[in-house]
Amino acid sequence: MKIYCAIQLSQREKDYLNQNIGKHTICFQQDIPNYQIDNFLQAEICFGNVPRAWVEQSENLKWLQLESVGFDAYLALNKPKVMITNLKGFFSVPVAESAVSGILSLLRGINLLTSLKEQKKWEGAAMRSSLRTLEGSEVLILGAGAIGLQLKKLLTAFNCRVSFFDKYSSQAQYVLVDDLVKAIPGADIIIGCLPESPETIHLMDKERLSLVKPTAIIVNVGRGSLIDEDALAHKLTNGSIAGAVLDVTTKEPLPADHPLWNCPNTVLSQHTAGGYEEEIIGKVNIFLKNLERYTKAEPLKDLI
Amino acid sequence: MKIYCAIQLSQREKDYLNQNIGKHTICFQQDIPNYQIDNFLQAEICFGNVPRAWVEQSENLKWLQLESVGFDAYLALNKPKVMITNLKGFFSVPVAESAVSGILSLLRGINLLTSLKEQKKWEGAAMRSSLRTLEGSEVLILGAGAIGLQLKKLLTAFNCRVSFFDKYSSQAQYVLVDDLVKAIPGADIIIGCLPESPETIHLMDKERLSLVKPTAIIVNVGRGSLIDEDALAHKLTNGSIAGAVLDVTTKEPLPADHPLWNCPNTVLSQHTAGGYEEEIIGKVNIFLKNLERYTKAEPLKDLI
Repeated sequence: MKIYCAIQLSQREKDYLNQNIGKHTICFQQDIPNYQIDNFLQAEICFGNVPRAWVEQSENLKWLQLESVGFDAYLALNKPKVMITNLKGFFSVPVAESAVSGILSLLRGINLLTSLKEQKKWEGAAMRSSLRTLEGSEVLILGAGAIGLQLKKLLTAFNCRVSFFDKYSSQAQYVLVDDLVKAIPGADIIIGCLPESPETIHLMDKERLSLVKPTAIIVNVGRGSLIDEDALAHKLTNGSIAGAVLDVTTKEPLPADHPLWNCPNTVLSQHTAGGYEEEIIGKVNIFLKNLERYTKAEPLKDLI
Repeated sequence: MKIYCAIQLSQREKDYLNQNIGKHTICFQQDIPNYQIDNFLQAEICFGNVPRAWVEQSENLKWLQLESVGFDAYLALNKPKVMITNLKGFFSVPVAESAVSGILSLLRGINLLTSLKEQKKWEGAAMRSSLRTLEGSEVLILGAGAIGLQLKKLLTAFNCRVSFFDKYSSQAQYVLVDDLVKAIPGADIIIGCLPESPETIHLMDKERLSLVKPTAIIVNVGRGSLIDEDALAHKLTNGSIAGAVLDVTTKEPLPADHPLWNCPNTVLSQHTAGGYEEEIIGKVNIFLKNLERYTKAEPLKDLI
């Protein structure tokens, strides 16, 4: 079978994939100077996120293994016969750790201490009364998927009370947006980890943001479109919200003149939260396992 | 009874203490311009850490309530009739949170991202493969006191395997220094939370530091004297250790020319880890509860 690999791999990762691919023919996009659609069109299988227009044009593609959890770029695809699988749950551990790390940084002053170290400036005891603890916080998580559940596990160790808003999960305490609106004012920490859909775009709009406690921290590790960023930047700047941890933003990279760069008490993790040393090998392993199923005509894992 | 308060309080905290002190007479050190020992010498009870020499000279002092867990400054005191109580366990929640926050910052790149934000520089995807997760780490905690046990609780949620070195605790897997030496090379994270004693000074000396994995992170939230700081600074600079989170240092404030200011992958939390918003009120409450016991001639809590 002809496989097209759209993921950029290191030599070590490429060797690893080649060693484990069996008798299939694999074409690496990174090896084609000024690559165009041609090689992709010959493939039956694609590993990695190619433009939707390419998938539309292909007559040979039967299976697309995404290298992401998000598949919003393919929602409008009109190719019912192409199977698409995603990396459901793959990022839950690193993303949940980055979210907790960002929250703790703001509460325990680690971001301020990082700046002080660069200035070689000792503040010490004077900072202590401005610090807060995560212990016992009321946490509202938007999205009870793999990341949300992992977050609950971690936050429970800090004696946080965790509740979920999710229209499609039995784990959720809040299912309707009206319920969410009632839950917002009680939350010390609000964490967004929802996929993008017409229902989630600006779910945290100016009006709902205005219901957030001034002492609260808002976190977004799902999709940037969840939050009205102008309204949030305004709140951060005037101190009507205590902080934000944003792994995702509407525009990435964040434009140089974006107001979020200047907001205080804000951690911008630049869409790195899913990253870790062996991330690519982990993705390759998921692809290889699904490839084995495909070869044996077994059902693929995480079909969307 | 005459009480001497050596702790600096805000007006709100002072009002709170006055409202709850009952019929005792209290003298606030902060209200005496150029205070000397005189007022202290009249007191039967002292709340707060006064110089050891003062305690030596007092004929009236019966009880000293420290505002710290550490009591190494009073080890040489020769006043067997003075009862001393400390704040055992008081800081375990904030200190453990600061330690985990520092560790996660290094692993998830939050300290680097803080610097990038100040420079308004987007690195994004390029950083991902340099990030690591805490999940499943081997953690060696030196000291199985309240902070160590709280750390174990938090780290267990991250699926860390936690073991303790402690000469005096039944919780410890390693009791002898020889056992500790054997455990060091296997640890991904080593956390010091030991009190200071002749046995703990430079327990992590140059030789034992040389046994630490190059990928490991060392944390110290106990006493600065635990670690040979010159040896550690050298290892951090030459990359033979992955990072350090130091809440305590031998000299505080850290001198401007100290090599630790320039070390990479180092979080210096400036002895703030025990701090939190209601820290002083929390201390006042512990004093008031012990004062009630003292008044009723009941045994005091956390007598050392």
